[in-house]
Amino acid sequence: MKLSSIGEFGFIKRISETFNQKLPEGIVGIGDDCAVIPIDKNSCLLVTTDMLVEDVHFMKEKISPFELGYKSLAVNLSDIAGMGGKPESAYISIAIPSETEVEWLDEFYEGVHNLANSEKILLLGGDTTKSPDKLVINFTMLGKAKPDCIKYRSTAKVNDIICVTDYVGDSGGGLMILLGDLEMNSDSSYLVQRHHKPHPQIQEGMWLASKPEVHAMMDISDGIDSDIQRIMESSGCGALIELNKLPISPALRRVSAKYNWDPLEISASGGEDYCLLVTVEPDAYENLASEFKSKFNRELTNIGVIKDKDYGLQYIKNGIKAQLKKHGYDHFV
Amino acid sequence: MKLSSIGEFGFIKRISETFNQKLPEGIVGIGDDCAVIPIDKNSCLLVTTDMLVEDVHFMKEKISPFELGYKSLAVNLSDIAGMGGKPESAYISIAIPSETEVEWLDEFYEGVHNLANSEKILLLGGDTTKSPDKLVINFTMLGKAKPDCIKYRSTAKVNDIICVTDYVGDSGGGLMILLGDLEMNSDSSYLVQRHHKPHPQIQEGMWLASKPEVHAMMDISDGIDSDIQRIMESSGCGALIELNKLPISPALRRVSAKYNWDPLEISASGGEDYCLLVTVEPDAYENLASEFKSKFNRELTNIGVIKDKDYGLQYIKNGIKAQLKKHGYDHFV
Repeated sequence: MKLSSIGEFGFIKRISETFNQKLPEGIVGIGDDCAVIPIDKNSCLLVTTDMLVEDVHFMKEKISPFELGYKSLAVNLSDIAGMGGKPESAYISIAIPSETEVEWLDEFYEGVHNLANSEKILLLGGDTTKSPDKLVINFTMLGKAKPDCIKYRSTAKVNDIICVTDYVGDSGGGLMILLGDLEMNSDSSYLVQRHHKPHPQIQEGMWLASKPEVHAMMDISDGIDSDIQRIMESSGCGALIELNKLPISPALRRVSAKYNWDPLEISASGGEDYCLLVTVEPDAYENLASEFKSKFNRELTNIGVIKDKDYGLQYIKNGIKAQLKKHGYDHFV
Repeated sequence: MKLSSIGEFGFIKRISETFNQKLPEGIVGIGDDCAVIPIDKNSCLLVTTDMLVEDVHFMKEKISPFELGYKSLAVNLSDIAGMGGKPESAYISIAIPSETEVEWLDEFYEGVHNLANSEKILLLGGDTTKSPDKLVINFTMLGKAKPDCIKYRSTAKVNDIICVTDYVGDSGGGLMILLGDLEMNSDSSYLVQRHHKPHPQIQEGMWLASKPEVHAMMDISDGIDSDIQRIMESSGCGALIELNKLPISPALRRVSAKYNWDPLEISASGGEDYCLLVTVEPDAYENLASEFKSKFNRELTNIGVIKDKDYGLQYIKNGIKAQLKKHGYDHFV
């Protein structure tokens, strides 16, 4: 049987069923942004790992080594942020084609250091090896969180407001500009920057995780369309997403108009936004959003509502039921 | 500047100098088998990560998926063993070519589970992604150790006896059989098994680490010739290795005689033995070796002595100075 016949998430489900057997009390394994291991009464260790492969996750000729180093760390920080943790130390494995210039690698590590320094992350280990062909980067990230301030994918409740913590779709738009070799101006540069230098929402994650009215949380890596399904599966619920409510940046609107793209489509399924997808107790949403706004100077945007399981996943656009053309990314399909 | 001009260890030195700046007290970063992070008075977290790349570390047609899964975990357990720790949880990232059969992956994970179950390791996370070409596997392993029972590469002392905890060279011999497509009999099968299913010396490592007379320790992954140089660099010392003292298995002796190989050469530079390289207070060696023998039913073999830094690394064979033809593996040279 080919891997493509069960898909990435089918495969993860297949292995996680055996992996998650008989875990000791309090330990959370595969199935969320991070594994959770209790340390003591007041703290848990969070662990996440992400592999980036040349020509799958990035194209070496489209991203500077500095940005690639920065982004490789950022996507792992985002997983820790997705559960409300404080990232602490990173471990970098890298398989390097022999013809790689040392100067390219120096710049790559400068990008890693740049984000590590600003977020006070210690770089404590790694592995370097030869690659016969493609550059492969794996980061493992360790973080900490208080046990009662960790948010999971599995704790969404029916009627929760579904929110996002930033514009969505910029990264997907940036990727389309890169893939199409489109003209660079200030708008397209902004979108490409959002694709290459995502800002992991660590402070936002920690703050939201400290709020009991926040029920479920994860970071958006594969796109809302894919990631909301992770919450639905884990929480046993359905979801309604109102496409017109998706927060779209002025730059993405302008670039979409120019190239006749559908910005709603890009925002729902583009992926790599690395902001947070959150479900909130409906009565508490207004207050929380206004506190969030005054703290982070950004909207906690209501984009839909959690429904019961039978509802499945439905989209509304301009008041009527809608379907996405493209869906979130699956590696094996 | 090409990477090959500074080599793997030159490159690691280059990046570790920037990585290890300003680490908080008690934290050990790049430069040993694992990173060490204090948790509380009685325990430290050990973290290690290793990347295995198809056609660099393994050939898919020469190793079964079960063995590859087993070995991928084993080499990481060995790093924890090399510092005297108890391995606890593993995180697997894997980049998979699209044409891979699900059944192949099932067998791979069976190999991982087999060793994980016997060593009571929890498999708590990972990442699965597509690879355009080669299979790439990255394991990250977390373990624990008591702060006063961790052994480093940096603590060897002049006059220490250098020891190994098992036969060396079997894995190197097994690799030569695979690469040469040589005839399989019980001896060559044994060597190939030693190459494919290394036994991480966790109990041995924990026991040796509890002994104050053991000064420095690491696992042998790149071969004695390469790994003793890691101890020399970290401890600021030299070393004399007596090639005739290297413990060589009867199988490797017989296969070497048959194919006219030099078993001393293979044992000193073959690599992937995944037993332990240990330096011991000279007065304490006899007692320790006899205790080790009665506990593990294996020799703690004296293979040489730590010298001062100016001595460098010297080999003796049949009473006279000798040079190795091949040296330990460097990925980029």
